Amino acid sequence: MELRHTHRIFVPDDLAQGSVVAASVEQAHHLIHVLRLKGSDVLRLFNERHGEFRGTIGAVTKRGVEICVHEQIRAQTTEPDLWLCCAPIKKTHFDNMVEKSVELGVSEIQPILTQRTQIREVNADRVYKICREAAEQSDRLSVPAVGLPVSLADLVDVFPKDRALIVCAEWGVATPIYEMLNNPAMGAFTKAAIVTGPEGGFAGEELEKLRQVTNAFPVRLGPRILRADTAAIAALTCWQAVRGDWIK
Amino acid sequence: MELRHTHRIFVPDDLAQGSVVAASVEQAHHLIHVLRLKGSDVLRLFNERHGEFRGTIGAVTKRGVEICVHEQIRAQTTEPDLWLCCAPIKKTHFDNMVEKSVELGVSEIQPILTQRTQIREVNADRVYKICREAAEQSDRLSVPAVGLPVSLADLVDVFPKDRALIVCAEWGVATPIYEMLNNPAMGAFTKAAIVTGPEGGFAGEELEKLRQVTNAFPVRLGPRILRADTAAIAALTCWQAVRGDWIK
Repeated sequence: MELRHTHRIFVPDDLAQGSVVAASVEQAHHLIHVLRLKGSDVLRLFNERHGEFRGTIGAVTKRGVEICVHEQIRAQTTEPDLWLCCAPIKKTHFDNMVEKSVELGVSEIQPILTQRTQIREVNADRVYKICREAAEQSDRLSVPAVGLPVSLADLVDVFPKDRALIVCAEWGVATPIYEMLNNPAMGAFTKAAIVTGPEGGFAGEELEKLRQVTNAFPVRLGPRILRADTAAIAALTCWQAVRGDWIK
Repeated sequence: MELRHTHRIFVPDDLAQGSVVAASVEQAHHLIHVLRLKGSDVLRLFNERHGEFRGTIGAVTKRGVEICVHEQIRAQTTEPDLWLCCAPIKKTHFDNMVEKSVELGVSEIQPILTQRTQIREVNADRVYKICREAAEQSDRLSVPAVGLPVSLADLVDVFPKDRALIVCAEWGVATPIYEMLNNPAMGAFTKAAIVTGPEGGFAGEELEKLRQVTNAFPVRLGPRILRADTAAIAALTCWQAVRGDWIK
């Protein structure tokens, strides 16, 4: 099997040629019982710090699986600094939003609680697992961080001055996203955050509060009504295509 | 409830002020037993020909629900002519791809069978139902048509000369999608088709065959590996944002 088609896993350990790392219990189960890998079978490893390495299955015991680390395949690279600040939505669509966001290269997912947010708790472990698996499958060298939910008011209060706040505005004055992404004022920012509301949309005063942030850019995503997850995916896509690492 | 927040349904019948139409059995069940609408409650109707009308619940009998048609709210409009030619993929991701494509304004979904397409049958009724529901919820005035699966070879053979064929190329020479959408050669086409492969990607000769179509535009969707559904959603988004009805 070509190296680029081998299984990839994230490990927290340091990676260097000649070292040996342990797969997690869950990874070990997947490698041995689902993918049926055996001694010397090849896989790839990344840890967010040292790039990507070729690995082979080493000792397989009841307690776990050791992986021998061979040569480095890719060096660690800098990735776009793009947050998704999103109201949690119902499970299937939330999971879809997280999976797609990771594939699209989001660097951090920040759940926000709004007036109409019906789902107010986020199982951080479950969301992180979706992030990790999507990162493994999409060839990323990083796993996006998932923040604890914060209120919209808190997000606005502490929103960094050096980051563009791209507000997906369901109504009111907003600029078509393509036009906005080409706006010279947007060009001043290398960091961005996409903000999307819950199923019922932002409340009027919430959208007003978001618009009033100094570096806010309210955008419109076409004439149709998009689900919350679709809006997030579409906005991330546009940013990557026009201003992110898809332009290369 | 504001009119724009009322339930919307697609009906095949002619719509004109003063007429009465019948909801389908499934719609009737949803209106009465799920949404619990009663006599005179307001909803909206569209039929792909006469725009959108305000309706109210009329006679509710064991055999069905009648809907009284009142004034027209929106005139029928022309929508972008944008096809998605996609290899069928596993159910959850296929359904997601269909739902999102409809929200993003696709006009036709054409399943294509490729060498690595593992799912070779498409339940047209089920897919149409997803399309109809997504159209109802996204405020569209049309429901995309869903074609019967065709082979990639047949698609290439009969591909119309007046439509841009945007090939999502997982590898080989391809142009970043944003650059390609701004290419003057692309500007000659008002009609487009996005082509995406199955989970395992296109085979080498398939991608070659697609590239050789006269009006083919092979595009790249960034440095990460996207799932088939993500690639379709991302390419549709970019087309709409740069060349479709999102620019208004």
